[in-house]
This record gives sequence, structure tokens and C-alpha cells, in this order.
Amino acid sequence: MTTMAPQLLERKSKSIATMRALVFHGPNQIAIENVPVPRAGVGEAVIRVTLTTICGTDIHIVKGEYKVRPGLVIGHEPVGVIHELGDGLTGYRVGERVLVGAITPCGQCGSCLSGQWLQCGGPIGGWKFGNTIHGAQAEYLLVPNAQANLARIPDELSDEQVVLLADIASTGISAAESADLRIGDTTAVFAQGPIGLCATAGARLKGASLIIGVECDPARAAMAKKMGADIVLDFKKCDVVAEVLRLTDGRGVDVAIEALGTQSTFESALRVLRPGGTLSSLGVYSGKLSVPLEPFAAGLGDHKIVTTLCPGGKERMRRLMEMVLHRRLDLTPLLTHRFKLEQITDAYRLFAEHRDGVLKVAIEP
Amino acid sequence: MTTMAPQLLERKSKSIATMRALVFHGPNQIAIENVPVPRAGVGEAVIRVTLTTICGTDIHIVKGEYKVRPGLVIGHEPVGVIHELGDGLTGYRVGERVLVGAITPCGQCGSCLSGQWLQCGGPIGGWKFGNTIHGAQAEYLLVPNAQANLARIPDELSDEQVVLLADIASTGISAAESADLRIGDTTAVFAQGPIGLCATAGARLKGASLIIGVECDPARAAMAKKMGADIVLDFKKCDVVAEVLRLTDGRGVDVAIEALGTQSTFESALRVLRPGGTLSSLGVYSGKLSVPLEPFAAGLGDHKIVTTLCPGGKERMRRLMEMVLHRRLDLTPLLTHRFKLEQITDAYRLFAEHRDGVLKVAIEP
Amino acid sequence: MTTMAPQLLERKSKSIATMRALVFHGPNQIAIENVPVPRAGVGEAVIRVTLTTICGTDIHIVKGEYKVRPGLVIGHEPVGVIHELGDGLTGYRVGERVLVGAITPCGQCGSCLSGQWLQCGGPIGGWKFGNTIHGAQAEYLLVPNAQANLARIPDELSDEQVVLLADIASTGISAAESADLRIGDTTAVFAQGPIGLCATAGARLKGASLIIGVECDPARAAMAKKMGADIVLDFKKCDVVAEVLRLTDGRGVDVAIEALGTQSTFESALRVLRPGGTLSSLGVYSGKLSVPLEPFAAGLGDHKIVTTLCPGGKERMRRLMEMVLHRRLDLTPLLTHRFKLEQITDAYRLFAEHRDGVLKVAIEP
Amino acid sequence: MTTMAPQLLERKSKSIATMRALVFHGPNQIAIENVPVPRAGVGEAVIRVTLTTICGTDIHIVKGEYKVRPGLVIGHEPVGVIHELGDGLTGYRVGERVLVGAITPCGQCGSCLSGQWLQCGGPIGGWKFGNTIHGAQAEYLLVPNAQANLARIPDELSDEQVVLLADIASTGISAAESADLRIGDTTAVFAQGPIGLCATAGARLKGASLIIGVECDPARAAMAKKMGADIVLDFKKCDVVAEVLRLTDGRGVDVAIEALGTQSTFESALRVLRPGGTLSSLGVYSGKLSVPLEPFAAGLGDHKIVTTLCPGGKERMRRLMEMVLHRRLDLTPLLTHRFKLEQITDAYRLFAEHRDGVLKVAIEP
Repeated sequence: MTTMAPQLLERKSKSIATMRALVFHGPNQIAIENVPVPRAGVGEAVIRVTLTTICGTDIHIVKGEYKVRPGLVIGHEPVGVIHELGDGLTGYRVGERVLVGAITPCGQCGSCLSGQWLQCGGPIGGWKFGNTIHGAQAEYLLVPNAQANLARIPDELSDEQVVLLADIASTGISAAESADLRIGDTTAVFAQGPIGLCATAGARLKGASLIIGVECDPARAAMAKKMGADIVLDFKKCDVVAEVLRLTDGRGVDVAIEALGTQSTFESALRVLRPGGTLSSLGVYSGKLSVPLEPFAAGLGDHKIVTTLCPGGKERMRRLMEMVLHRRLDLTPLLTHRFKLEQITDAYRLFAEHRDGVLKVAIEP
Repeated sequence: MTTMAPQLLERKSKSIATMRALVFHGPNQIAIENVPVPRAGVGEAVIRVTLTTICGTDIHIVKGEYKVRPGLVIGHEPVGVIHELGDGLTGYRVGERVLVGAITPCGQCGSCLSGQWLQCGGPIGGWKFGNTIHGAQAEYLLVPNAQANLARIPDELSDEQVVLLADIASTGISAAESADLRIGDTTAVFAQGPIGLCATAGARLKGASLIIGVECDPARAAMAKKMGADIVLDFKKCDVVAEVLRLTDGRGVDVAIEALGTQSTFESALRVLRPGGTLSSLGVYSGKLSVPLEPFAAGLGDHKIVTTLCPGGKERMRRLMEMVLHRRLDLTPLLTHRFKLEQITDAYRLFAEHRDGVLKVAIEP
Repeated sequence: MTTMAPQLLERKSKSIATMRALVFHGPNQIAIENVPVPRAGVGEAVIRVTLTTICGTDIHIVKGEYKVRPGLVIGHEPVGVIHELGDGLTGYRVGERVLVGAITPCGQCGSCLSGQWLQCGGPIGGWKFGNTIHGAQAEYLLVPNAQANLARIPDELSDEQVVLLADIASTGISAAESADLRIGDTTAVFAQGPIGLCATAGARLKGASLIIGVECDPARAAMAKKMGADIVLDFKKCDVVAEVLRLTDGRGVDVAIEALGTQSTFESALRVLRPGGTLSSLGVYSGKLSVPLEPFAAGLGDHKIVTTLCPGGKERMRRLMEMVLHRRLDLTPLLTHRFKLEQITDAYRLFAEHRDGVLKVAIEP
Repeated sequence: MTTMAPQLLERKSKSIATMRALVFHGPNQIAIENVPVPRAGVGEAVIRVTLTTICGTDIHIVKGEYKVRPGLVIGHEPVGVIHELGDGLTGYRVGERVLVGAITPCGQCGSCLSGQWLQCGGPIGGWKFGNTIHGAQAEYLLVPNAQANLARIPDELSDEQVVLLADIASTGISAAESADLRIGDTTAVFAQGPIGLCATAGARLKGASLIIGVECDPARAAMAKKMGADIVLDFKKCDVVAEVLRLTDGRGVDVAIEALGTQSTFESALRVLRPGGTLSSLGVYSGKLSVPLEPFAAGLGDHKIVTTLCPGGKERMRRLMEMVLHRRLDLTPLLTHRFKLEQITDAYRLFAEHRDGVLKVAIEP
């Protein structure tokens, strides 16, 4: 029996520094592969991912509808443990559990310093993971501007309790925030997929008096009520616009939330909105988007249309975790399925096909 | 057969049109008496009061601490039925059930038209009932600017469910609103009397992550938890400032709500506030109010101090009733006692002496 | 003794209580006619109009593009003298000079009491003059909810100095206000007609650092500079989008103001807007309005689109008059032509055909 | 051949890398001395200072009223040229001209990521220069978090045009910003020292209709008018509170700005404020600060009191420079005197004694 000399061991360990990760090679071409474990440069950190998930945006990427470069590791919702800390970071230790938002602002550019963290450095610039740099569906993840983005997870919270905060909760809840929804406002939330469900939860958290969900899938409708909707309308069974107007005594809602990204939901959102109300749009639109002029009062209705990407950064994550910690928010019911990272392509299929009542899948590296 | 002389007829008609009402005659001199039923002039309405209550401010009036003219009927929290409609009103019918806010803005002066409804026509000008005109602790009540102030009560709601909206709910909830409390903010609410309890409810409704009540009375502390507080600190048993800082990891709260009106609570509220945070003050201060410079960072802490009287007007009442209707808010537990109008002086004693766990008393004319 | 024939009697009574007014009878059918002088009911006032003007909206009405009922007196920008005061008004005297905004909120409905004065009572409900009730191009004008709408004119100001505040100044300035334009923001204002010129003035008043006007008419371009534009781009001579991006170092403007109401200007406004910026729309759109998805970042750019009708009510008018009084704003250069009411149809022709460098016409009853 | 002893070598290397700087040794003990030129660590930069100035706060430090550690180089208003760039910075080159704000937020802590850049890392934590780290009254200056704080100066602007933006302009202008001053608001600015003069300029920039300055020094009063005040009241010659109420028709101002930091100016600011108005406080208070209850309406006046340190960071500086570039703001008249760094103690004396009409002094290393 021979033992390896320490130096050799070290060298080998460096040469073994690969990890499993989901790599995008082109439309409908994704695979779990070995890729190098990233190393932390100045201001960066590497985390060992302990839980992640798949987003609707990832489906768009895989289908080739949203373009990213071949060879990219995708995914942008990481929970993990600090593995390596680059120069220039303070206050962190290797081994700490952290949540990182889907959006990773630098905090130091003109956009960030004017409060536009989501548009860090330029249009949609805050979204880096699985878009412009390697993403979270991997064993390890390089976190840029780590000082601004590593949010310590309180011991009381499990990975499952926080993983959905990285993107869908932050996005969904922002709908009511960007609309400046006030206590007593009535709200309609169009589409009750993962984002819409969180928008429903957010409207409830911010003090809406009446929350009307719009959704045809019965399981999602049921979940919508769990998340805070008072009523869920099935657009296949009723005239949603007429019904919302009836439920609000002809007044229309104060805030209409669009959580799908289609002309039809956008238009309905505008049609149920009172004059002076706010349409808060979360959807990603494709093709064409037009504004129906009659409900828009030809531009004279004092309407507001606001859009939000997804608030990120460690402070946003900290605040959302506080909401979970104090039992204001529980998104674990949305984690309907669980897969090992090695089986992530199965998870993608299930998620893309909306099978088995899937809402969100937990992916464990 | 004799006919009455016109003068006599007039006198008789006057003698019929009297009602029972609580009249203030001077410090500690109040009595239920017969006074004329009011008549509605242009833009005014008279309601038959079906439920009202006593406010802490009424106690100040009775004690002579807040000055009103002798001969005034006091009280400012009316639920009733429309009895008479003056000229110039549209959309109302005699017999409709209505809630009227404690603050009755005209809607048409410079203050109102710049959104300062509470300060209608000048300082604290929105507060008219039981202050500058006759009030609600009576069988009938003249409502000025009725078009702006009669809020129809939905059939589903009882008088008891809405009477506390007129003042304490509207005031209490406004603390979080004026502070622009955001989802995830931590909050401390100093004093859990009726207003403080509603402030606690309001902080919860608006999305606070952690709500720390401060109160030494165990019954009120228990009620605070019911209204949404996570923790209630007894200032007689702990160092509240130190404890709040500990509970917020040394950060201080984002919003501190003062709901008593003393130097000590104001000061503590400032001491637990983070830099850049907001002190939302509801209390009515007497004597002297000073700002401790160290927690105020000598004026360099980006602190905000905001005060709010009590949002009124029919739209505010409508919105608050929507919150009750959709089960976001239930204040009936605060109605701990019930009295007939004839016994209102007993109710005043009970309320002033904080006896029998009294929070609010329902007064039935 | 002879008695007058009934017809004569009627004629005589009419001759006393009639006035000259511009009546709309159908598309392209307007005429100065005798109509009854209005009488003030409860809460109303009648003013003797001393100066008014013609608005672009009036042109739309005359052309039949915006529908109003035949028989209506049109116009909505009145300066005058109080002629009659109805019951229920306080603080006014016959003979006082007043300015009345184009939008006349009641101040007492749900919309008004939630700060939505422009949408008083429902969509665009604040716009009554020359839309749902008789308008200002007449010798006398009935003012509804007069308590909320009669703004006394300081002695120091002439009719000419204030007449444009009623609509175009209030509308134009609101663009920067609704966009919440901040000190240091860059701005582009698309179209420098009367509204756009006021939007330019408003952007300057609110602290824009760089104001880029877009206009091809040289006279209007020159006026734009007078109103505060730093640069005026002629869209016939340059690629406006490229040029604005160049002028802002590729950043795009913080606030883009649309002051015309066409697809093309709306689209350009969005194309020059930075991520997270606000498109403030004043135009009245017809036909179709579509949102180009690329500059809209498919809904992920944190953009805001806000629309504003025209803030009205006496407090708004008072504040704008203060701006004129203290020499912050001088719109008299926009009053390029002057006509007697009897010649108003000539004024309409001139104004509709944009002849002789016309910007706004003063109409004197 | 002789070799130098290590100690000598070290001394020599130090003697090359020293600079002249103003060192604070204790109350009233400051001196120009040789100190080491700083070296840039990760994320840091060193600039060669080309122009700086003295602030009122420096006077407080020198007098011992504000405590800093002995041995500290003071001053916090630097204009300079990049001399050395530490690791981790991108987009900058040695030799570029830069302005650095007095407040240097990191951009990456919880405070910064919630928009509280001034309170970076904790109370007043954004203020580092000449407070917690060496300051700008020196030949060279270490800039922490340089990526967030180096603002390139446009070629068109001289050092003199931008040096006052670092602190007094940013602070002064923030008064109107923090108060959310609206177009048409009336304003009173108490004290017209350097900060107050900039507050006056800021109120003008943000659209105030009437600006009333309060100041007894005739030269400062004259400068106040130059900066935008309509009227300047001399508190030694008139009852300022009565006069402001008269000038606003008894209404009181919408925004009162306190720019001195005394009980008396704070109190007057509150007394001239309308109900619902905002007191924007810039002063640094010492001793005791009390809130007079009568003008505060005992807490029921819907008043707001807001405080602001001094917005910093490179984006703030960029925006302010844009204001100067587009001729919205010219502060060069405030630079009344000029000194070489070697003579800075003379400058301190002049500035502290308010001699020779001094407003701000330019200090040239």
C-alpha cells in the first residue's frame, strides 16, 4: 500500500476541481456535465449550492425564446454554503449558509446608486446568473459583487423555506409594491402560476381589501386562495372583466396585476382598472403588446402602468427571510416536486409540461 | 272647537323636536339632557344615531384639558340612519344606514383640494363633531358637508363592526400609512390602548415583518397579540430600548409608532429607531416635548417624524369597511362594554378609570 | 290699455336673459348664437366670462372626433367675474375676478376624496365644461361645485396672464409632476405645441438638468427654448432617438414626455427612455397604441408609463397663479392672437390650420 | 561599496512618499504637516487633491465640539485627479479628473441597499472623510469604495465650479428634495450661510413659488436673492413668524427649511409652517431641542419633520454636475476667498470668524 505525497494530493485535488452543472448548448439542448468549479476573484465568492429550482425563464431559455450563449450554466435561484471568499470581502466566513437573489446588483454603478438595482449597469443588467454569467443549477456558483449579494440565512429557516424568495417571491411581491398598493385597495391578479401566486400573497401582505385571482387551473385556483385570494375567477367559465366590475360595484379595481405576459391578460387588466388605477405588470411579453384605447381613456384616465424585473441584493433577501421567519409568508406549498441535480432534465420536462400539478421543483445538487 | 295660535303651534312643534344628548357644561360637568333635534341646512344631513362610543379625547374634554365651549354636545364616532337630507345632496335616501368619520372634511377648501382633508379649512379643522359643532353622543346628529361624509354601510356589516372605524381604526392604521411602512419593515408600537392596538393592526395589515408592542397592562398585551403583535414588552419589567435593539440584531426598527403622547414614549420611540427610519406619532402631547439629540444623531440621522390626526371622509370609511367586510380587520373584541345613552356618564367613569379591562364602550341611544 | 302679444313678451324676456355663445351643432357645424344665460342652483355660480381661449380638444370636438351632444356650448378655459352665487356658497362676492380650471372636481365624491379629482365621479368625469355641461366660449358660464372651483385672481395679475393656466399650463406642468421628475433628471419632450411647451416649462420648473425638445416647426422650436428647452431636435432633420441617446451619453433620458398623442411619438419616447425611467404621457391617442417590446425590455425594464388628464380645482389654480405672480412662469408669449367672441369661428379656422404661427388665441366675449 | 541600513532605507522611502496635510491634534490644535501618502488597497483609490474647501463642520471639529481622533487629517470636500487605483476597480484611469462627495457610501451594505446611502453601515456611517478616515485637506486622499465614489468631471467644468457640490450643494438642495417640495409650494429658509444659500437654490430649482429667506447679515441676504430668494427677512428688524404668515395670507409656508441648528430657528420654522406642511431640517443641533406644542398642534397637525445628512456617491455628484453644466446652478459666487494649502490655518481663522464677507474658501494644495 502506498500513500500519496501531500504535494501530489494537492495537485490532484486541483485537477479534480470539476463539478456537475446543467449546461445549455442550444435550443432544447441541455445536459448535466462536468465543468470547472469557479474560483473567486476580487469581490467575488463561490458558494456550494445546496438547493435551487427551475424558473419559467429557464424554460424560455431552453426553448430558445430567450437567447443566452451556448456553454452557459443556467439557473438563477441559489441557496448554498460559502465555499470560497475572494479579496475585498468583509464580515463573511466560509461555511455560512446564504441565500442569493436572482438579481445581483453591484451596488456601485450609476444605476444602483440611484436605486435602480435591477437595471444594474444597463437594461436588465442586474440579472446575471444563467444569463450573462454561469448560473445556479450546479454544484458550485460564483457570486459576483458578493458583498452586496450574500444574505445569511437565519438558523431557524430551512433551505426549502427560502429558496423561492430568490426570484418568484421577490418578483411577485414587488407587483403590489411597485403599484404602491394601499390598505383597502381592491386588486385583480391575472394568472396564478408561481409568480402570480406570489403576487397574490404580496397583495395580501400589503393590505388589499379584496383580491380577485384569475386562473382556469383548479389546483392553482385552490393554491391562490391559500395564498390570499378571496375569489378566483375562471376565465373559461365567466366574463372576467364583467365579473370584476360587478364585484367592485362597477368601480373597477385599484390595482390590476398582470403575471403572465400576454396581450389578452394585459388587456383584461386594463379593462378592470378604475380611472387613476395602476396596472402592475410582471409578465414577459413576446410578439406585440398593444394598449386598448377605450379602457385607457385614450390616455386621459390618469392610469399608471408599472413594470418590475425582480428586486435583488442581500438586503431584499434579508427582508423577505424576515417575513418567512415571522410567519407572514410560507411558500413551501409551492415546492410540489423534488429532484436530484442529476435528474434535472426530468424536472425541466415536468415543469415545462405543467404536469402533475407542478408549481415549483426543488433541485438538490 | 278652538284652534291654537300660530305662535303656540310653533312652540309646540319645537318642544316635540328635542332629543337626549350628552352636554358638556364645564370641567367635569357633563349631563344627559334634552336639546333640540338639529335640522339639515344646505349640504347638510341629520342622522339618527344608532351606535356611538367614547374616545380618549372626550375624556380630555371632560377633564377640561382640551377646551370646547360649554353647552356643546360631545362625541365624534357616529353610526346611524339618515333622518333628514338638506338641499344640494345627491345619491342618498332617508333611512339608509351610514357611518360618518370623526373627521368631516368639506372636500372643497384649499386644504382639502390639496389632499389635506384632516386640516380642512385650517389647523385640525377637519375635526368638527364635539369640538366646533355638536357631536355624536346624542339621539340625532347634524352632519356638515354630508355629500363628502355619509358612508353607506354594507348590509353584511353590523353597527358594532363599523363603529370603531370612525376614529380609532382610521387613526391607528394611519400610523403605518403615514410612515410609508414597507413589506418587511420591523416596527415597535408604544402603548397598546385602543389607538395603539389599531396601530398594531395597521402595521400588520401593511406588511411589517416583526411587530413589537410595548405595554404593561396584561389584558392589553394579550389583545395586542390578537391584533398582530409578535411580542409585547412590559416596560416595567425590561429595558424596552435595549430589548428592541436586541430583537432587531442591533439594527433598530424601521418604523416606531408612538400611540400615547408622552415625552417618555416619544423618546423611547426615537431611541429604538434605525438611522433613516420613521417615527410615526399619533399621540396628543401636553406639557413639553423634547427631542433627545443623541438618538436623533443631532439632526444628521435622516430620521423622519410624521404626525397624523385621523383620516376621515366617506371614502376612507368605505375603504375601512371593505377591510372589515373581507375579514382583514375585526375590531369587535375591543368593544368590551355596552351602555345605553342614558347611562353614558357611568360609561365615562369606567372608561376614564380604565376599570374592568375596558377598551372601548358601545353607547346605544 | 294694450297687452303685449305672448311672442313679444317672450322675446323681450329673452333679450334680457340671453347671451352670445358658441354652439356645437354637429361635425364642422358651430355658430355664435343667442342662448339663455344660465342661473345658479345650489352650490353653483355663474360667472361673466372676460377672457377664454380655444383648445386642441375643441378642434377634435368640432371635427366630430370627440363626441359631445349637439346644442352644447363648448370651451373650457374661463376667466371671468362672479355674476351670481347659488345657495350654499361661502366666502365669495359677486364682482370678484376668478379663474376656473378646465377640470371642475366636486371634491366630495369617492374619486375626489381619494385624491383622484380629475376622474371625479368616474372616467374623465372631472372634465365637464364643453363636454357634459355648457362651456366657456360664451358671455356667461355656469360653474358647478363652485365652492371647489372659483379661484380668486390676485389684483396684480391680468386676465391674459392667467387664462392659459386653466388647461394647458396645468396639463403641461403635470407631466413632470406625475413623472415625479427629480432635480438632475434629463428629459425629452415630444412635440412643442401649447401643451408640450408647457410641459417643457414644467420640466424646467421641477429641476430637470437637460431638456431636449422635439419639434419641426421653427417658431415652436424657438418658443420651446424660451420655455426652457436646452436643445430642440427637428425630427425631419435628424434621428431623434439616436440623437437623444448621444446627448445623454448613451444613458437615455430619465423622463420622456409625450405631448402629441401619436404612435410615433409614444414609441420614440419609449426608445429614448433609460431602464427604470418614466414615460409621462399627455397626448390623446386615437386609432391604435402599441408598445414596442424591445425598448420596453419585454416588460422587464422597470419602466413606468403614467398619464394625466389636467389637474383642476381652485387650489391648483391658486398655486399656478402664485407661480405667475412670483415670475416663475410667463405664458403670455403663447397668446399669439386675439379675437372677439363674435369672430370666434375665424379663430377656430386659424387655430385648426396652424396658420400665422398661432399658438393660442385670446377670445374676448 | 556600502549598503544602507534597513532603517535608513525605510526612512528614505517614507520621505519620498510623504505629503502636506492638515492634521487635527486636539481642540484648537491643527497644523500643516508631513504625513505619508496613502496607498490604495482593494476597491480603493488615491487621488491627488487639486481643490478643496473648509466646512462649518470642520470648525466644529477644530473647536472640539465634534469629536474625532487626534492625528486625523480633516476635510471632506475633494476635487482631484486619480493618482492610484486599487484592485477591483473598473472603468477608471489614472489621470482622470474626479469629484468625490463628502459622503462615501459603500453601496453594498444593508443600509446602502435599502437606499440609505448616507447612513452606510450605521448612524452617519456614510461620512468617513475627516471623520473616521483621513480627509481631503491634504495633497493626496484615499477614497474608500472608489467604484461607488469617483465621479468623473466633464471637461467643460472647472474645479471651482464643482468643489462646492461635494457637500454644501448636495446638502442644501436635499432640503427641498427630502421635503418633497412641489411646484407652487411656498418656502421659508432659516439662515443663509453656505448650506442655507444652497437650500434656497434648491427650493428654487424644485419649483417653489415664493421663497422667503431669513438672515441678518446684509451680504448673505444679498447672496440669498442671487440664489433665488424672493424676499429676505432680517430677524433683528422684524417679527419673522408674523411676517411669513402675512406674506402667505395667513396660510403659513408649505415647506420650512432649517439650516442653522438652533432651538430658535427650529422653533420659528415650525411656527411658520402650515398644518400638513414639512419642516426640513439640515442643522446640526447641540444642547437641547424641543418641539413647541402649540404650532405642532400637540401632534395633531399632520406635520412632518425630516432630516438629511448629505447625499453622496458618484451618481449624486454626476447629477449635480449636470445641473452646473446646463447652467441651472452656479455656486462660484460663494467661493469668496482663495488660499494655498500651506496657509489653510489662516483660512480657518477667517472662516471661523465670518470675516470679510467670507462664504466659502477655495483651498489649493
